[in-house]
Amino acid sequence: MMRLQPPGFERFTQARSFNIVYGGGEANVAVSLANFGIRTRFVTRLPNNELGDACLNYIRQHGVSTDAILRGGERLGLYFCENGASQRGSKVIYDRANSSFATLQPGMIDWEAALQEADWFHFTGITPAVSQGAAETCLEALRAARAKGIPISCDLNFRKNLWKWGKSAADVMPGLVEYVDIAIGNEEDADKVFGIKAPEVDVQSGKVSADSYRTVAEKLAERFPQLKKVAITLRGSLSASHNTWSGVLWDRSGTFHSAPTYDIQPIVDRVGGGDAFAGGLIYGLLTKPEDDGYAVRYAVAASCLKHSIPGDFNLASRSEIEALRAGDGSGRVAR
Amino acid sequence: MMRLQPPGFERFTQARSFNIVYGGGEANVAVSLANFGIRTRFVTRLPNNELGDACLNYIRQHGVSTDAILRGGERLGLYFCENGASQRGSKVIYDRANSSFATLQPGMIDWEAALQEADWFHFTGITPAVSQGAAETCLEALRAARAKGIPISCDLNFRKNLWKWGKSAADVMPGLVEYVDIAIGNEEDADKVFGIKAPEVDVQSGKVSADSYRTVAEKLAERFPQLKKVAITLRGSLSASHNTWSGVLWDRSGTFHSAPTYDIQPIVDRVGGGDAFAGGLIYGLLTKPEDDGYAVRYAVAASCLKHSIPGDFNLASRSEIEALRAGDGSGRVAR
Amino acid sequence: MMRLQPPGFERFTQARSFNIVYGGGEANVAVSLANFGIRTRFVTRLPNNELGDACLNYIRQHGVSTDAILRGGERLGLYFCENGASQRGSKVIYDRANSSFATLQPGMIDWEAALQEADWFHFTGITPAVSQGAAETCLEALRAARAKGIPISCDLNFRKNLWKWGKSAADVMPGLVEYVDIAIGNEEDADKVFGIKAPEVDVQSGKVSADSYRTVAEKLAERFPQLKKVAITLRGSLSASHNTWSGVLWDRSGTFHSAPTYDIQPIVDRVGGGDAFAGGLIYGLLTKPEDDGYAVRYAVAASCLKHSIPGDFNLASRSEIEALRAGDGSGRVAR
Amino acid sequence: MMRLQPPGFERFTQARSFNIVYGGGEANVAVSLANFGIRTRFVTRLPNNELGDACLNYIRQHGVSTDAILRGGERLGLYFCENGASQRGSKVIYDRANSSFATLQPGMIDWEAALQEADWFHFTGITPAVSQGAAETCLEALRAARAKGIPISCDLNFRKNLWKWGKSAADVMPGLVEYVDIAIGNEEDADKVFGIKAPEVDVQSGKVSADSYRTVAEKLAERFPQLKKVAITLRGSLSASHNTWSGVLWDRSGTFHSAPTYDIQPIVDRVGGGDAFAGGLIYGLLTKPEDDGYAVRYAVAASCLKHSIPGDFNLASRSEIEALRAGDGSGRVAR
Amino acid sequence: MMRLQPPGFERFTQARSFNIVYGGGEANVAVSLANFGIRTRFVTRLPNNELGDACLNYIRQHGVSTDAILRGGERLGLYFCENGASQRGSKVIYDRANSSFATLQPGMIDWEAALQEADWFHFTGITPAVSQGAAETCLEALRAARAKGIPISCDLNFRKNLWKWGKSAADVMPGLVEYVDIAIGNEEDADKVFGIKAPEVDVQSGKVSADSYRTVAEKLAERFPQLKKVAITLRGSLSASHNTWSGVLWDRSGTFHSAPTYDIQPIVDRVGGGDAFAGGLIYGLLTKPEDDGYAVRYAVAASCLKHSIPGDFNLASRSEIEALRAGDGSGRVAR
Amino acid sequence: MMRLQPPGFERFTQARSFNIVYGGGEANVAVSLANFGIRTRFVTRLPNNELGDACLNYIRQHGVSTDAILRGGERLGLYFCENGASQRGSKVIYDRANSSFATLQPGMIDWEAALQEADWFHFTGITPAVSQGAAETCLEALRAARAKGIPISCDLNFRKNLWKWGKSAADVMPGLVEYVDIAIGNEEDADKVFGIKAPEVDVQSGKVSADSYRTVAEKLAERFPQLKKVAITLRGSLSASHNTWSGVLWDRSGTFHSAPTYDIQPIVDRVGGGDAFAGGLIYGLLTKPEDDGYAVRYAVAASCLKHSIPGDFNLASRSEIEALRAGDGSGRVAR
Repeated sequence: MMRLQPPGFERFTQARSFNIVYGGGEANVAVSLANFGIRTRFVTRLPNNELGDACLNYIRQHGVSTDAILRGGERLGLYFCENGASQRGSKVIYDRANSSFATLQPGMIDWEAALQEADWFHFTGITPAVSQGAAETCLEALRAARAKGIPISCDLNFRKNLWKWGKSAADVMPGLVEYVDIAIGNEEDADKVFGIKAPEVDVQSGKVSADSYRTVAEKLAERFPQLKKVAITLRGSLSASHNTWSGVLWDRSGTFHSAPTYDIQPIVDRVGGGDAFAGGLIYGLLTKPEDDGYAVRYAVAASCLKHSIPGDFNLASRSEIEALRAGDGSGRVAR
Repeated sequence: MMRLQPPGFERFTQARSFNIVYGGGEANVAVSLANFGIRTRFVTRLPNNELGDACLNYIRQHGVSTDAILRGGERLGLYFCENGASQRGSKVIYDRANSSFATLQPGMIDWEAALQEADWFHFTGITPAVSQGAAETCLEALRAARAKGIPISCDLNFRKNLWKWGKSAADVMPGLVEYVDIAIGNEEDADKVFGIKAPEVDVQSGKVSADSYRTVAEKLAERFPQLKKVAITLRGSLSASHNTWSGVLWDRSGTFHSAPTYDIQPIVDRVGGGDAFAGGLIYGLLTKPEDDGYAVRYAVAASCLKHSIPGDFNLASRSEIEALRAGDGSGRVAR
Repeated sequence: MMRLQPPGFERFTQARSFNIVYGGGEANVAVSLANFGIRTRFVTRLPNNELGDACLNYIRQHGVSTDAILRGGERLGLYFCENGASQRGSKVIYDRANSSFATLQPGMIDWEAALQEADWFHFTGITPAVSQGAAETCLEALRAARAKGIPISCDLNFRKNLWKWGKSAADVMPGLVEYVDIAIGNEEDADKVFGIKAPEVDVQSGKVSADSYRTVAEKLAERFPQLKKVAITLRGSLSASHNTWSGVLWDRSGTFHSAPTYDIQPIVDRVGGGDAFAGGLIYGLLTKPEDDGYAVRYAVAASCLKHSIPGDFNLASRSEIEALRAGDGSGRVAR
Repeated sequence: MMRLQPPGFERFTQARSFNIVYGGGEANVAVSLANFGIRTRFVTRLPNNELGDACLNYIRQHGVSTDAILRGGERLGLYFCENGASQRGSKVIYDRANSSFATLQPGMIDWEAALQEADWFHFTGITPAVSQGAAETCLEALRAARAKGIPISCDLNFRKNLWKWGKSAADVMPGLVEYVDIAIGNEEDADKVFGIKAPEVDVQSGKVSADSYRTVAEKLAERFPQLKKVAITLRGSLSASHNTWSGVLWDRSGTFHSAPTYDIQPIVDRVGGGDAFAGGLIYGLLTKPEDDGYAVRYAVAASCLKHSIPGDFNLASRSEIEALRAGDGSGRVAR
Repeated sequence: MMRLQPPGFERFTQARSFNIVYGGGEANVAVSLANFGIRTRFVTRLPNNELGDACLNYIRQHGVSTDAILRGGERLGLYFCENGASQRGSKVIYDRANSSFATLQPGMIDWEAALQEADWFHFTGITPAVSQGAAETCLEALRAARAKGIPISCDLNFRKNLWKWGKSAADVMPGLVEYVDIAIGNEEDADKVFGIKAPEVDVQSGKVSADSYRTVAEKLAERFPQLKKVAITLRGSLSASHNTWSGVLWDRSGTFHSAPTYDIQPIVDRVGGGDAFAGGLIYGLLTKPEDDGYAVRYAVAASCLKHSIPGDFNLASRSEIEALRAGDGSGRVAR
Repeated sequence: MMRLQPPGFERFTQARSFNIVYGGGEANVAVSLANFGIRTRFVTRLPNNELGDACLNYIRQHGVSTDAILRGGERLGLYFCENGASQRGSKVIYDRANSSFATLQPGMIDWEAALQEADWFHFTGITPAVSQGAAETCLEALRAARAKGIPISCDLNFRKNLWKWGKSAADVMPGLVEYVDIAIGNEEDADKVFGIKAPEVDVQSGKVSADSYRTVAEKLAERFPQLKKVAITLRGSLSASHNTWSGVLWDRSGTFHSAPTYDIQPIVDRVGGGDAFAGGLIYGLLTKPEDDGYAVRYAVAASCLKHSIPGDFNLASRSEIEALRAGDGSGRVAR
């Protein structure tokens, strides 16, 4: 997906140019993992034109395998994103209808090939939101992955304005989450998709209690008994330029880990922050499977750093993330 | 319509930003005329979001009335345009399907209001190409204009890749051209839309004989007996950076005028060149109705200068055009 | 007026380019109101050259009527503005002498036409500061407006470095404020123009008490008995990047309303902040004339958002302002 | 003087930024000479603000002595310059009235100090055009220079739109040229200032005969018997992007030298082309005083290269100029 | 290698930013071939820092395999390149000493792995110029390639200023060319490396006779009897902005093919033009091994289009190249 | 030295351009002092190419004498610097090996000429870190300066990654500091170079006690009995965007002065912050030799403002620094 963004803090009506960034939930996670040294393959459908080439190249530069990317359809999905500041929030205008991805149909992708050698499968709640075909293709993938015994993670990622094809997230997501081993979300996702509310929270205060999210995780796990782990990200929205950021990880065994809360000011680009969390979490779970505390702290440190990087992709290195995880958020010059 | 263009001579796969220009056949003509001091009103349909606002403001800045612009629909039509050089031609990727304009339906626009006080109506062959609804709305407008006795001009503007809604230009255009008083086109339009071929021409040589286009005009006028005038633009394509440019104007009375041929090198932006010709021609016919020779020379000089101006709009002033028309193409510094 | 600004935080001696913004006290208010859906007309004088055209177009794009703008004179007024950060304040170099506006003389503007259908007249203390002719023309306008019974608002807007034509603000402003119904100012304006001091305030602390400004309003109203309302903006200057911002509105009936104080960090562009307040206030008073509390809260929310928008104009939408007024300053992404 | 220029080929009404260049006739010559290794001192008056600093630094970076620059006055002179292409010429809007330079008065500059150690004095016809004070200061300088026996060169540089202070070039220039040893001009200067016309020439044809300018030189020398040499630049204006360029040098002894004609396409920036010629000529005359042919060929080669360099200053090196003078205009990569 | 280039036509002393492009002889050929759908692997050595990552990603985005790239050494090789125009040639400042590539030593690269599945090996004369280690590693590669029976092509690419490690091109190149099957060069390469002069040619005239290069090919083949084919590119340097471009291909069987001569104006970026020829030639020879005429015409068309594309890489598509090869150099808009 | 920096907050792998800034410890101090009106001369060695010219011009524009700069050697030293934000620190990649400066050898510089009329000599610990030749040349300079009785200041400036030529800072610096009258450092310098540790400090807390640094100064003075004064800068690193900043000055007479602590948010560019302190301190000591309190407060205010200015040089004016020193950090607009 192409993101078109006015430079600096210009509003749409002021812009005479757009900066171009490519990305999207699953692509962002794939790039995070490739960046951490994990072999990854990204599956999507792109139009057979130069914009499709540009998007493919953009992902390929980071070492993600693009072999399974299907080419076809009418257009590249895109969205326009105006950068907010202080009290003015960022603003997104989606223009994804009839994209090559939205016109995906079951049977188009050879999942046997796409999942070859895979030991993890990740998807987000944005995919089924885009179209019925995308939702059905997602289900198709989940069945193939489960058949192969591949662990599945899902970032719930609720986007109200995307669910326009006839069914709601509440209709569709449960049938997909049934296949999921590790669910990732924030308090809004749980509420809007499954009606699970967190205890009263005031996100504008910047004070969000980690423990109060334990019950959200437990309720979700109650509803989906196959779920092994539930991770929740905690964002305190003090302003468009200033957030607090943390996360928790609950395991069916009863362990519950939380990460420190970071104070992020200024935010350079918060798009992809949640995906950076997912990428960090999967990395932690893959490389230190016995240490959930490490995973959630790595994930939160990774995604904290993402907020300082323009674009969708988390280009923080493992060593930078480890340094922050270990407590150095001083931002001193490395020379 | 929004044009998204990589800076300089970058290819799509290299671009990290797009320059933004708004424009489109009829809008470009309206801005030309407003710029020459003629009151104009532009009729279209734009989405009710900030991109629609941006497009409307962009046109409004030049003093064109935007009162009759309808707001609604899903998205702003857009296209991506890569700037060519030397032997490499510019490349356009259309992304106009399902735009607010393409989803226009007859009855949506109040033509009574839109044509109020109008003494000219101009449209291009791009409009009916976009969708059946746009074609039918165009016909609706033509009937309203004729009912009010408003002279009608049409720039045939054949775009092969736009005619995708089920009918071809050859199917649809004749029914619209029946309403037209002044037809404008190039040799390709006449050929591709009506099968009228110019005598053998080699556009790459840069040598295009004005007189040989007289027969094209005559054949077109034969087929559409209500046509009063036919104007044809003559482009010699030596390279993407170097064109020759001229035009002729035929009148049913038998007069036939041609303009000098300009050698344009380098071309800064040739998009909107034909619209600048149409704008110049209408200006000439409106202000010196008895002098077809003036009209075509003003039109060619105006559109020649357009090639030196970035964006769709011809921002050359009357005095600049008159100076070129009078023979000064020396490009000396005016200080 | 043209604002020329080095990009980012460059100093004048570093700049190799200037960003261009057009604006000015009264123009900014007109654009605010047009943006809120109020028909507005902007009256000024611009040179009859391309820079005058550029300025006119820039204002016209926002739907403000430019019909009453006079063309003539020698040059466009301009100023250079270097963007500050942290402890380094922004720096303005005026270059307005002999501008088309400064050489305005009484009798040049047809106030009968300019005030046609007007139901509000707004001016700022910058206009009479520019030149004797501008001051006299301002008086001429005030007389015409009063003769037509049009309510008049004035933003006192004291600028020490502009009053260079021989008389001081203290000499001239009283004769103009006599015509004013609604006065707008800050603590410095009242002090420097009328010698009315607010109780001891430390603007650097960021703590400015709304109530302490009640007496400023009352003293001003005492001196100008025709004044119906007095609005005062309250800026706490913690640094060039970090301000607090609020405002109060006093009514002769004795009511006194204050708005919440916003913490703005970072400031994207504070130029035009006061004008955004005036625009918001006039909007509130025009559309909810019985609710002074609404007006001042709308005005402060509007101008708070202005600080996040580059350029002079407040391009925040009514819905954005209403959301902030209603308490949501979280700056979350709208998608 | 500050030059403000829209990027690329944007028109004034399109520009959202201006590129900044500092320069001016005499400054350009000083920088050329410094660049060739000649010690130079530049004398002017700049405002005592940051824009004056920026201008001074800009010149000082090239090693020109700025010790004699006077600080004071109200504003920096500036002009806006829109870059032309093909048939559209560049456009200049002067905004120099009341600049620190224009308000210069005789007696302000300490010519004794300014001319210390000088062995050449150069001025242009732009200086006396700006204001009476500048003209009188120029005369003051010429008297001081003659008193010290310093050779004086003058680039006639006629600018119609600058002579606005009451007298014409024809009134003023003769009194100054009386002091001049070496006059530099083009066919327009001789015609407009002294009424000396070249034989019929068609500058648009690009064919300008060097020999036909011999008579112009001779007539000028007849009128000013103290003149030792007359140099004339020959520009063929095929378009704003394409010029031919040459020059001739006549000596009272009767020798007459011409340089080859260069075909310049594209022109990157022709502002300062004449000054680059003057700089090259003075360099040649200073370093090879016996070889007028060398001087004019060096001057034409130098100024030919200037057309490929953005900004006012000729930053071509001696070795580059010598290579072109020796015949290599192939523009091959030097690596 | 990183190329740092001032924007537009700025000189080094004017630049306040550099555009970044990565490339280099062999990389450029690899990207050309990948772009044509040929699987390619690029072998080099890059520093183990973020600049090395950036370079690797830049190449990887185009689908070239980077698996065999070695990481290590002190620094990334770089060069500064100023863009010429008209009579002013581009200027290159090399800064490659002690780069990771220059400090390459025989034994570092696992040629067995690097040449796996290879059916072509290409290198350029730049590699042995950089350092003794690079030259020896090159020889090592050639021996490995010959041992595997892989066809070898060499672009002679003489760069005087690079041969600084103690031996000259004339010393070293013969020992490498002994391994070569297909040699590519221009008239300067043959002359400077092997002392083989073409018949008298005036490159500045733009008229270079293809046939006169036949003898150059034959003399080269005489000296290196294992050579199967010799290709020579023909550049006519009219100016930095305007070149003619062609090429010939000689085969030991006696066939000799030449391509049409293209007139390129303006040149957008000529760096990589020769590599685009090599890439096109190899593509032709690989895919139509029986048709040398096709290969040279495809190669010349490909490299002609390269001149219109910024950066080192030839991003022209096969269909664009085929269209030009088939005769359409009109540069018309593709829409 | 050339600094190459990705725009905004881009990472190295994202950058398609670098902004160029020239600077370096001693140059930065020289420019600060020139900017304050002190005559200064900068001594270094630059390559004899256009990049050397660019660097020299860049320094010369600020009025620093460049007469003593030696030209020669192979390359300009450069470093790449990525701008950090929030928790992500800035990142520097040095590329200085074999620079013209690093290959400096004793005897190359004519210190007699270079120190002519000097009444202060300043150097930093970066110079001896670069190479043995630079270290020896530094010693040579110190001996020459002492012989002339010129006071010497040294900014210890420890850079771990620069000391690569065989000896460590602990080996070399003592032999140089023996010549120093005024030492400047931070807590890390004292620790890493001389093993003098400050009492336990937590720089991330932003709370650094001035008094606790008194002992550092005293220990340093104990070790180097010729030291007259020791200044220490105190940086609290809350994040890459937010620092506290202060400093202290100890005098052998026993006086100890500290400056207020400034809260800097956001940091525009912290490179050169320490040099701005040194420049301010020297200015204070030169102009008010009896007032150490003034010197340290001026130095801290100067360097605080530097953090708001892009590039290495402190372009804050004396009046701006004095205003901050006097307590106005409100950052209000100066107009």
